[in-house]
This record gives sequence, structure tokens and C-alpha cells, in this order.
Amino acid sequence: MLRDHFLAVRQRSLQLASPLSPEDCCAQSMPDASPIKWHLAHTTWFFETFILEAREAGFRPFHEAFRVLFNSYYNGVGAKHPRAQRGLLTRPALDEVRAYREDVDARMLRLLEGEGDAALSELVLLGLQHEQQHQELMLTDVKHMLAQNPVAPAYDGAGMAPDAPPRPLAFLDFDGGLVEIGHDGRGFCFDNELPRHRSYVAPFALASRLVTNGEYLAFIEAGGYRDAALWLAEGWDKVQSGELAAPLYWRRQDDGAWHEFTLHGELPLDPARPVTHVSLYEADAYARWAGARLPTEAEWEFAARLAGLETGRLHPGAAVATPGDAGLAQMFGACWQWTSSSYAPYPGYAPAPGAIGEYNGKFMVNQYVLRGSSCATPAGHARASYRNFFPSGARWQFTGIRLAR
Amino acid sequence: MLRDHFLAVRQRSLQLASPLSPEDCCAQSMPDASPIKWHLAHTTWFFETFILEAREAGFRPFHEAFRVLFNSYYNGVGAKHPRAQRGLLTRPALDEVRAYREDVDARMLRLLEGEGDAALSELVLLGLQHEQQHQELMLTDVKHMLAQNPVAPAYDGAGMAPDAPPRPLAFLDFDGGLVEIGHDGRGFCFDNELPRHRSYVAPFALASRLVTNGEYLAFIEAGGYRDAALWLAEGWDKVQSGELAAPLYWRRQDDGAWHEFTLHGELPLDPARPVTHVSLYEADAYARWAGARLPTEAEWEFAARLAGLETGRLHPGAAVATPGDAGLAQMFGACWQWTSSSYAPYPGYAPAPGAIGEYNGKFMVNQYVLRGSSCATPAGHARASYRNFFPSGARWQFTGIRLAR
Amino acid sequence: MLRDHFLAVRQRSLQLASPLSPEDCCAQSMPDASPIKWHLAHTTWFFETFILEAREAGFRPFHEAFRVLFNSYYNGVGAKHPRAQRGLLTRPALDEVRAYREDVDARMLRLLEGEGDAALSELVLLGLQHEQQHQELMLTDVKHMLAQNPVAPAYDGAGMAPDAPPRPLAFLDFDGGLVEIGHDGRGFCFDNELPRHRSYVAPFALASRLVTNGEYLAFIEAGGYRDAALWLAEGWDKVQSGELAAPLYWRRQDDGAWHEFTLHGELPLDPARPVTHVSLYEADAYARWAGARLPTEAEWEFAARLAGLETGRLHPGAAVATPGDAGLAQMFGACWQWTSSSYAPYPGYAPAPGAIGEYNGKFMVNQYVLRGSSCATPAGHARASYRNFFPSGARWQFTGIRLAR
Amino acid sequence: MLRDHFLAVRQRSLQLASPLSPEDCCAQSMPDASPIKWHLAHTTWFFETFILEAREAGFRPFHEAFRVLFNSYYNGVGAKHPRAQRGLLTRPALDEVRAYREDVDARMLRLLEGEGDAALSELVLLGLQHEQQHQELMLTDVKHMLAQNPVAPAYDGAGMAPDAPPRPLAFLDFDGGLVEIGHDGRGFCFDNELPRHRSYVAPFALASRLVTNGEYLAFIEAGGYRDAALWLAEGWDKVQSGELAAPLYWRRQDDGAWHEFTLHGELPLDPARPVTHVSLYEADAYARWAGARLPTEAEWEFAARLAGLETGRLHPGAAVATPGDAGLAQMFGACWQWTSSSYAPYPGYAPAPGAIGEYNGKFMVNQYVLRGSSCATPAGHARASYRNFFPSGARWQFTGIRLAR
Repeated sequence: MLRDHFLAVRQRSLQLASPLSPEDCCAQSMPDASPIKWHLAHTTWFFETFILEAREAGFRPFHEAFRVLFNSYYNGVGAKHPRAQRGLLTRPALDEVRAYREDVDARMLRLLEGEGDAALSELVLLGLQHEQQHQELMLTDVKHMLAQNPVAPAYDGAGMAPDAPPRPLAFLDFDGGLVEIGHDGRGFCFDNELPRHRSYVAPFALASRLVTNGEYLAFIEAGGYRDAALWLAEGWDKVQSGELAAPLYWRRQDDGAWHEFTLHGELPLDPARPVTHVSLYEADAYARWAGARLPTEAEWEFAARLAGLETGRLHPGAAVATPGDAGLAQMFGACWQWTSSSYAPYPGYAPAPGAIGEYNGKFMVNQYVLRGSSCATPAGHARASYRNFFPSGARWQFTGIRLAR
Repeated sequence: MLRDHFLAVRQRSLQLASPLSPEDCCAQSMPDASPIKWHLAHTTWFFETFILEAREAGFRPFHEAFRVLFNSYYNGVGAKHPRAQRGLLTRPALDEVRAYREDVDARMLRLLEGEGDAALSELVLLGLQHEQQHQELMLTDVKHMLAQNPVAPAYDGAGMAPDAPPRPLAFLDFDGGLVEIGHDGRGFCFDNELPRHRSYVAPFALASRLVTNGEYLAFIEAGGYRDAALWLAEGWDKVQSGELAAPLYWRRQDDGAWHEFTLHGELPLDPARPVTHVSLYEADAYARWAGARLPTEAEWEFAARLAGLETGRLHPGAAVATPGDAGLAQMFGACWQWTSSSYAPYPGYAPAPGAIGEYNGKFMVNQYVLRGSSCATPAGHARASYRNFFPSGARWQFTGIRLAR
Repeated sequence: MLRDHFLAVRQRSLQLASPLSPEDCCAQSMPDASPIKWHLAHTTWFFETFILEAREAGFRPFHEAFRVLFNSYYNGVGAKHPRAQRGLLTRPALDEVRAYREDVDARMLRLLEGEGDAALSELVLLGLQHEQQHQELMLTDVKHMLAQNPVAPAYDGAGMAPDAPPRPLAFLDFDGGLVEIGHDGRGFCFDNELPRHRSYVAPFALASRLVTNGEYLAFIEAGGYRDAALWLAEGWDKVQSGELAAPLYWRRQDDGAWHEFTLHGELPLDPARPVTHVSLYEADAYARWAGARLPTEAEWEFAARLAGLETGRLHPGAAVATPGDAGLAQMFGACWQWTSSSYAPYPGYAPAPGAIGEYNGKFMVNQYVLRGSSCATPAGHARASYRNFFPSGARWQFTGIRLAR
Repeated sequence: MLRDHFLAVRQRSLQLASPLSPEDCCAQSMPDASPIKWHLAHTTWFFETFILEAREAGFRPFHEAFRVLFNSYYNGVGAKHPRAQRGLLTRPALDEVRAYREDVDARMLRLLEGEGDAALSELVLLGLQHEQQHQELMLTDVKHMLAQNPVAPAYDGAGMAPDAPPRPLAFLDFDGGLVEIGHDGRGFCFDNELPRHRSYVAPFALASRLVTNGEYLAFIEAGGYRDAALWLAEGWDKVQSGELAAPLYWRRQDDGAWHEFTLHGELPLDPARPVTHVSLYEADAYARWAGARLPTEAEWEFAARLAGLETGRLHPGAAVATPGDAGLAQMFGACWQWTSSSYAPYPGYAPAPGAIGEYNGKFMVNQYVLRGSSCATPAGHARASYRNFFPSGARWQFTGIRLAR
């Protein structure tokens, strides 16, 4: 069954790349984003380096140079190709990377034929979760790259029909108290979700759905980007310098109409859909304007235990009004939700030993936690205790706004 | 009595500037630091703008241009002179700024002659606390400026005798639990210390004193700046680029001996004194190397209620071993202590209305909380609930390391 | 006959791209260099914009967006895609650009079927000379891109045998005098070669061949990069910052042996071949070390009238010693030769009217003239009056050193 | 007599500093400009280093640290204080620098009491010419510094009456021919004016006076800064980025009226005075707009032999119309005049041996020659063969525009 799961996840990466040309798969639009080809190779490198190298008899690397070329940030494994130069790796060609995947897959499957042990299964699961994280990045990175192109190419030309009007925004009350936060031990989790620990949460209210494009447009039209009093000082600096003026992919046409670049190409802005591709600064300013605030990650996680899962689109859909709906919508599967919590270790946190321990802990500074999942998150990858994290200015992920009070 | 306090604090600023020439008072060594003359004028501007302008009959500004020149960051009050250009303000001359202070002081004293009201007293107290914060900055900013000068001038030529050996480092245990954090309402506090609120603190241990120069030197000599595994990723980038290689003012002589630039000039490194002028990255790496961690601000505040106060030096002194000492030393009056807590609003936090509300809230992102006080903090300015904050890379303050477990 | 020439030049561009994959053709390694695909499209845009648009009945552009995407720097023609972002144009795909070329070629050929007029022929010739300039850039740009790749891919895997020893370096004397400089009106020339004009040239001597790798290595080993007295101040700054330490593609192996990255891959440094990929700063410093100087462009042109032509390699060859040789070797076909002349208009220079006038004149500041031609220059493109020009720090062209006295 | 000259020049530097406070003398507004105090010290260092150190029996430096602090760019003399940090040298204080000057002056005078030799006289003359160059920089550097101050302080509060209308602009014809360029050997010259050499100059015409503010304003109002066709490509980039929009010190008031910041403070723009503080890009664009061009330095020097000298103001005056005037006005004493000639060595140029040889030669790249002199040039410092030089973007000198055809 682990083999089936392995094959399914590995296959999914290739499927995500299938609408793209070799040129599309090679380009890199900014240092934060990586080429599709690099993602395909790096996720393979992960299995080769952390599993095959340790466990395969007579291990020999597929290609000596890949050890450096496709190491992302693991100092414990040696040198790394400079991040900003990944787009210049026209060699190996995409076909060679596909061959690399096939070779490592075959060797992994042989390894998984045997009895195996818990440690191996755990590492394989980590590798697959790691690949799923990169599957989301493949979509957000290629979106960013395509967005730089004046001809606005669609990743998926199938288009997208307008959504029905969203349900009204309500605030749901929670009592809070001394609660348990963190993963409960059932199933896979990353080390940053542990240890489960107690946290005191004061009574709070959480919005029943995400902020919509229509609501965010009202903020813009009310002068939200012109009022310093709404902004954190750092955010206001970015507004003043012109870096922040609207969500990342919003574009104003000559006739004043707003459009939004999506993986389906450039579309008229749909007011029903959640606003996405906003920075923490914008989320925070919007919340202040709306007389609310962003939730803490503990509040979010505490509330999320009541919510269900939804996944599998290429652009976030509206929280459509349905008769009798009451609970929290869009906790998963629409947009990652900025919290006011900086990314910090849980009390008693300890990273795994060895290079694998570089997965999370060393990034726990100057980043903020996002909770939930997005339309680009692979099915089965989301959970209530999941901690995503990005710097406050990052906008190329599917980031959205859930209000709290 | 408020008038006496007013006069004493105002006088103290001039006294801090007295060893310095007009040239010393005008130069600015980096955008983060301000010239002494600017500090003297800005603290005066604060009283003129937030008190005299609102309450003085027939108010006329001392000088129209000062409204802009000496506004630090208050968008609500209008335009600001660019921060990085403060060192070019050779006019007004230092003597004119002294005249500005005299004029505003005289008008403030007239205003304080009357009955007054609680709101006025509160604003005056805020202005004085504000000036005390700048008094600490005057010392750290001029230290940074003098440190750029190859002739290594002393702010105070009186020198400094070596300290006695420090007491041994011990870890003191605390039970924690569901505790109250924040200011208790007795006496002055800044808005960021409020509201007092409940927080759950797991059992922890806190070091009995700060990390010493000698201990930090052992970290360097053990290769602390060469082992990526000890560092947050951002910190390691700064080590790789050469930005971080030793505490800010440590200098290695040709013969290999370490010296430290201080306000008393360049001195041989005293192993007994606390290490100071370190970034959060260095504090965190040292803690990891020492098998410990940095405390959270809640842990620190909870523990601090047991500790006393010490103040009034120009360089932090050693925690000298004395017979029978047991408790926490150097919680105040030596070095500000990095915590692992990002600077965030307390639950229910609300800034004051108007421009005065820009004092704290808008800076609550991408900064870290420091607790305690330093040798440069004015007497009477420190308290257990005080929240100082700086970006993780800042080193020109008297920052030090207290370990936790 | 113009049609044959047209087809031959156009075909040559495709031939240059033929060893490369679509990925190779899309990447851009620095703002100064362009992707192969962009070169293929821009040279086509030149014919479409400056000829078809003005002369084709019922002209319609092949693709509206290409007007902007493939405009290099002609302000008179409208907006331009940002130069540094050319590598992100994964669309149009390479195949679409090939189709663009076919379409424009077919329309051009139809246009050239008729009688034509002198103005048309002149424009077509300009377009072909323009394309030949880009053919040289295709080789130098792709070389720079491949050089960034740690696996050091060869553009042409056929390799390159070592050259025979070079002839001895001699200085040939020239009388100079009041000479005529500039194009003589026979055949094509660019506007910057006109008008032919009188210039006084004092007696001088010119080296009989280019400086070799072996000679340049002696300069390095003698401490040439460590002696400030040899360098222009700007060049010394670049040495100090590490930007200049050896010719651009020289690489020192762990065993101390020098290699050189070429279009044939990484090869051991051949001491017989001319040193290439050096900046004006390095050329000037070498000349000073050798007790010589760089020639002026007038000196070079005056002397060049005695020399023959040689072309057609992918890496410059040695000036092999042959019995009885006496004259100037390697004036053409090996390396462009830095002169000490800044790129300035000749007396009476006037650019062509309209956008085509942006070809040369507007770049006549802060660049230096290079004379001759290189191994990458297309056959028939070189002449004695040709003025190539680059900033003093540029090194990615095949630039070399000819000494003068 | 050399002693009298020495004293007069040395005294003049102090006199230029006399209207300024110690604060004014310490600040540095950009890396290209130096503080007044630094100029006072560096010109003294020149005498101490290049004369006293070699010739004074038992030489001991006034202060060991000054050797490094006040070295500008002489690699041959050892380490240098970083140029951009000169404004942080609050120590030594201005009074100490005055004492330094007195000490070196006294020692120099003792040295000059003796017979002396030609080499000594030559070095002293070089030192005095060097100091005169810095006297001009003292005025332009302090002007730049004062201009950053929002209160727009005047260096000289005496004001400046409007000038009478300028004479009409005429073009004077010159035959040119094979002419001699360079210093003729009578009196002092810098090494860059040598050797005198032959140059062919085609017939040309030179404008009878400089371009006025009024004429330049017409260029602005005609859209000169909006028409790409008028600009060198580098200049247009600076226009697009907002760096170039009007001469450096022109300021537009809210009512649309232009003012000009001068050493006499901010004054209404006087249309009669020559436009000044323009870059080569602006001079070149204006010339193109006016159907003219900039002269070469050979043309300028050839023509200048007909002109007289005028000096001694703090802002350039108009070329007032007087009955019967015919020749070239404002060749000296108003504004330095951009030429189209890059700064290059004359044929046969050889710098002096030793560190003194770093005076000129190493700067002969990427700079352009300015001819004449300005209102800030000390009396007796100008001559027809003088070659001033600055990068094409420099504007803080008194640079102006003389047209040629």
C-alpha cells in the first residue's frame, strides 16, 4: 500500500508538469520560485539522498552532479547550487530529469518490496509529504512565471465559470480556555506540529468564511491603500514605494475594470471568490479597516477541529450560500490563511537528528504561520495542526484572509 | 512633583550630551542611529507637538521647519525628514537646539503650574518615558558613531577596572502554570504592556545570570561561527556573508588578543563581563551550542517578579560571586535579553487614539522582544512587564543572552 | 542576388541554434545577454518592423504582441519588454518563433521579387548586417549561459586540438601623419563609420599579433592582479572586490592547473592561443606591465589596411609561426581588440532619420571602441573601418589585447 | 616669493571655511563630496606626506593616524579611510585640524627658508595647485551639503542682485587645421596637459557665450525631458528613473515658479545667468535640441587662446551685453564646460614616478573633459590647456554648456 501511495504521488508531479513545455519547465521568475524541472528533480533527489544512499546496497548516484544541483538548502549534505540560478540549468534537459525520476522510482520500489521497517516507512512518508509540498509550489511558481509574460498564458485553458454569490459573513463565537494544540499523533505530521502542548486561548470569534474579492475591492475603493493609520509601518513603507497597491495578480484594464491573472489565464475579477495572493501586511490592514484582526494560530487550530475538508481546484472558489449552512467554510481547500503568529518552535520542540532536521527548525524566525490549505494543496495533505509559513511580504502563494475578533 | 521629575529628566539628556562636541552631536553613523542633536530636538518636539500645540493658548511653534525636521515616524502629524539624512542637519546648530529645549521647557513649566488634569499628567509622563528611551539611544547611537572612527575615541575617558570573576552559572526551576502577564496597573506603562492577560507557561528553568564574554569566547573558539547546524538559516546566511563573525564591538588585535570597544574606549576583553551587542541569531546559536534555548517573554516576565533592580553604568558589569547568592542576577541594568518571542499585540491590545497611537502598535511585525534593561537604561525606567523590541539582526543596543531550558 | 544573400544569412541563424534544445534557447544568464530564441525573433522583428510594415500592402503583424516583446531598444517604435526579463518568455515557444521567421522570410522574399529600389536594398542589407551582429551575440550569449552551468556543457562537442606555438611578438613601426579615417564608401557600412575624415596620427608601433594565454599567465604569476600601480582606479576597485581575478572563463583546478571554458567545453589552457574575454581594465593593465599601451582606433585602422582577413572558428586560434611571416597577424577573425578610444561620433556624424537612427548614435557615451573581428564574427562581416563598442568592464565577448607603443 | 604664495593659498582655504560652523565642516552629503574639515586636513597631509616626510630632518608625523585618515586615493602611500565615511570623523575636531595646518605650515616655511631646489619648488607648486583644486571642491561640496537641508541655509548671506540681460548668442567660426594642443611649458601645469602634441581640427564654430537659464528653461518647457530622441540612451534611462528632471539645484515652487539654490541661498531663477549644475547627458540633449553639439576639447582649447580670464564669484554671472563686444565670453570664471571628449592620455603621456603619479593617469577612463573654469575656481588657477574631468552624470560642480557646430 505504501508502494501504491508512492506511485500515486510521484505520478501526480509528472501530471502537474504535463501541460507545460520544456521551456516552461526551465524558467525561474524570481529567487523564491523554482523551475518545474527543478522541483521534479529535487523531490527525486530527496529520496535518493535520504533513503537510497543510506539503504541501497552498492549505492551509486544517478549522476554525481545532481547531488549539488538539486540540493535545496541542506547544509548537512554538502554544497548547493545557488538558488537564484536554478533557471539557468538548461542541462540536464527535462527528459533527463524524467529519466532520473524513473531510475529512482524503480530503485525505491525495489527497496519497498522487502519487509521494510518503521523508520523506512516514516522516511518514505516524509519524502511523499515533501513532494506534495513541492506540488503546491509547482503550481504557484509556474503561475508566477507565466504572470510575467505579457501574453498571459493559461496553465489550464479550460476556463472557469463565475461562482454563485457567497454566503453572508458571520462571526462564530468560541469559548477558548486551556486547550491542547499540536498534532495528536494519529497519522503523519511534520516535526513542527509537535509536541502537542497546552495553550491558553481567551474567548474569541472567527469569521465563517474568507474575505471575498468584492469585499477587498471595497477596501481599495474606500482608500485602504492611502491611509497610513491602517498599516503596519513596514507595510506602509511598501505601499509608499509602490510595491503594494492591490493583490499580486490583480490588473486594472484601461477602462478601469479589474481582472485577475489565474492558472486559467486572465479573468474578470469575480467578487464572490476569496481574495488571494495578499501579503500579511495587506491582510492585517484589511482586518483593521474591517474592525477585526487576524486570528492566532492557536485560535485557528482550536476552531478548525469543527470543520471539514475541501480540495482540488486551480483557483479558490466562493463559499456559496446554501440553505441552512452555519459552520466555518473554506478552512481548507481555498486559501492559506495568514495568522498573527510568528513561526516559532512549540515548547519542547526538537528537530530530527541529521540533515533531515534542517527541514523546519532553522526557518523559525521572521516568518508567519498560515493555516488551512489552498486550492493548490494536494488531496490528503491538509490537517488542522498543519503549520505553513512564509515571510510577511510573500504573495505568490494562494494566501487569503480570515478575520477574527 | 511632576515638574521636578520633568526638569530632572530633561536635564539628564543635556548631561548625556555634555562630553560631546557639536561635531560629535551632529554625525549619524547609520540610518538606524540618530545624531545626539536630533535626539535632543526630537524629544523636545514630542512635548511641543503632543502637549503644547493642543493645550497652550495662542500656540506658535518655536520654528515652523522643526515640525518636519524632528518628526520621527508619526504619519498622523504630517511630513518627516528622511531618517537616513539626519546627519546632514548641520543647521539648526547645537546651540539653537539647546535654545529650542529651553523655550519648550519654559512653556511646559508654565503649563504645569496650573492644576492640570489626569490626561495632561499622563501625556507628560509619556513624554518623559519617551525621552528616557531616547537617553538610552543617545548612548548606543553615539557609541556606534565613535566606533566607526579609527582613533577609537572614548565617550568617557575615565576608564573601567576589570570585574571580579562571575558567579557560577546555575539554572533555576520554575513551575509555570496559567499565569498573568502584562502590566498590573500600578504606575506608568506603555500601551504594549497591556492588557494584562492569562498565558499558560509550561515548567521551565532560567539561567541565574547572563552569558559572559569568557563563555562566548569559548563558543567562538569551539568553531561556533563555522557550524551551520547551530544557526537559524537567516543567521547562517549572515555568517557566510561575513556580516556576523563576533559580537559587534569585538576586535582582534594583530597578536590575536580580543579587545572590546566601549564607551570608555577600546579595552581588553574582560571575560567576567556579560557578552553584549549580539544579534538574536548569535544568541540563539550560542544557546543551541550550550544545550539550552532562549526564554519566551512570558517565562522571563514570570521569573522576573523575583528579581531586584540594578542600574547606572556605561558598560555592563559582571555578576560577581558573593557568599550566599542564589537568585536571578542581571535581570536589570546589565544587558537587554533576547527572547524567542516575536513582538506581537497582547490579546485585546488597542493603541491609543490619534497620532500618539503610532507609538508601538505599528511596529508589531518582524521584531523580537527583549526583556530587562541595560547599563544604559535610565534609573527608574525598567520594570518586569517592559517590552523592548528590535529586529533579529540588530546589535548596536546593549543586547545579551540569558539561557533557558 | 540580394535574395540569395538574404536566405543565406537567415539560414545561418537557424544553423547556429541547431545544436541547442528549446530550454537552451530560452534561458538568459544576465541582463546584457539575450536568449537564442529572442535573437531569432528580434532579428525577424527588425525586418517586419522596418521593412514590411512600411512597404507591404495590407501589412498585418504576425502577432500583435511581438511588436513589444522583440523590440530591443527602439524608443521610436513604442514600448519594449524589459531587457532583464527576456529569459521568462517561455511563450512564444521556439517552434512559434521558427514559424515567425518562416512567415516573415516568405513575405520578404515576395517583396524582393519586384524591382526594388536602392532604399529597400539598403534597408535589407542593414537588416542582414544587424542579424550578423546578433549571430555573434548568439554565440557569446549562449557561451555565457552554458558557463553558469556546473556541468560545463559544450555547445560543440567536437573538441579542439592544441595549436602550434605562436610566432614571436614583434612591434611593427608606422609613420602615421595626417591620415583619412572612416569608411571609404565601397560597400556597406554602419553610420558610425562615417563620415570619412582627417585625423593626425603620430608615429607609432603595433604588435604583430595578439597577446597569448601564455603571456597573460606570466602577468598573473608575476602578481599583475596584486599591484595597484598597474591599474586604472576603476579597474583596481574591481580587482579589490574580487570581480576581476583572471580572464572571464579561466578556471583553476584543485591541482593549480588552469583550464578555459570554451564553446567546445572546458579545456586545458592552451598557452599558444590569444587571451580572450578580458575587460578593458585588464587589457590596459597588461599593456602597462608589458611596457606598452593599447592602440587608438585611428592607429589600428591606419595599420589594418595592410592586413588580410581570417574567420570562421568557435575559439580563437594561435598566430602560428610560419617561415617568412612578417606582417600583422590576427587583425581579424581571432579576438576583438580593445582600443584606448572612447566611442564618440566622428566629426560631422549624423544618425539616420527615424527609429533606425537609434542604431548607433545614442550609445556614444561611456563605451570603448574595439577593432577587428573575432572567431565568432560571421564571414564577410568584418572590415578595417568597423567600430565595435562595449563598456570597459564587459568580458563576455571574444575580446583580446593588441599592444602598441 | 614661493613662501608668500604658499601662505596666501593656505590662508585662502581657512577663509573659505570661515563662514561655517564645526558642524557644517564635518558633514558629508554623498560619497563624491568630502567634508570641509577633511579638505583642510587632506591638503595639509599632501604637504606633510610628499614633501616633509622626504625632506625634513628627523621627520615625525603630526599624528600617526592622520596618515590613513587623510589619504584620499594614493595606493602607493598605504591604507585609506573609506571615502563614504569621511563625515563620521568627528574626531579630530576642527580645532585639531587647524592646529595640524599650523604645524605643517610652520615646518614647510622652515623648509622653504633655505635655498631650495627646482624639484622642491615644483612639488610645493603642485601642492598649492592641489589645494586650489580642493578650494573649488570645498565650495561645491558644502553647497551640496547645504542643499540637502530643508531650511536651505546660505553659505554667504550677502545675496546676489539680478544680472543684466545677456548678449545675444552668436557662433564664431574657426578654421582649425593641424594645431598644437597641450601646455606650452610656460608656468605650472598638471601632467595630464602634457605632452603638447599635434591634432587635426576640422573647421568649426563655437558659441560666443554659455547657454543661459532662460534658454534652458525653454528647452524644459518645450518637453526636452520627455523626448527620447534628444538623449543618449544612458541619459534617457536616468530621465525615466526620475534622476534627471531639471538642473540639480532648480526647485519648482507650489506656484510653478522656478528657484535655484545657490551659495547665497535659494533665489528666483535668473534667466540671464548661465545654466549650471547639469550633467553631460543634459548638456548633450540640450545641444541636440538646439541643433548644435558640444565642442571637443581640442576645439575648445584652440579657440580659448583668443579669450581672457574672469574669476571670483560664488555663482556664475551673466554674459552681459556691452557695446561692441564680439569675442568669446565666459570661457573662464563662469562654468566648467562639458566637452564631447573622454578623458584620455595625450599621445606620449607618462605619469610622474612614485605615488605622485597617481594624481591623474589612473582616472583616465569613463570620465569626460570639462574646459575653462568656474566662478568657484581660485584666481590664477585657470588656463587654456587645463583639463578638468568628471563622470558624465556628475552635476554638483559648476558645470555649464557651450555649444559648437
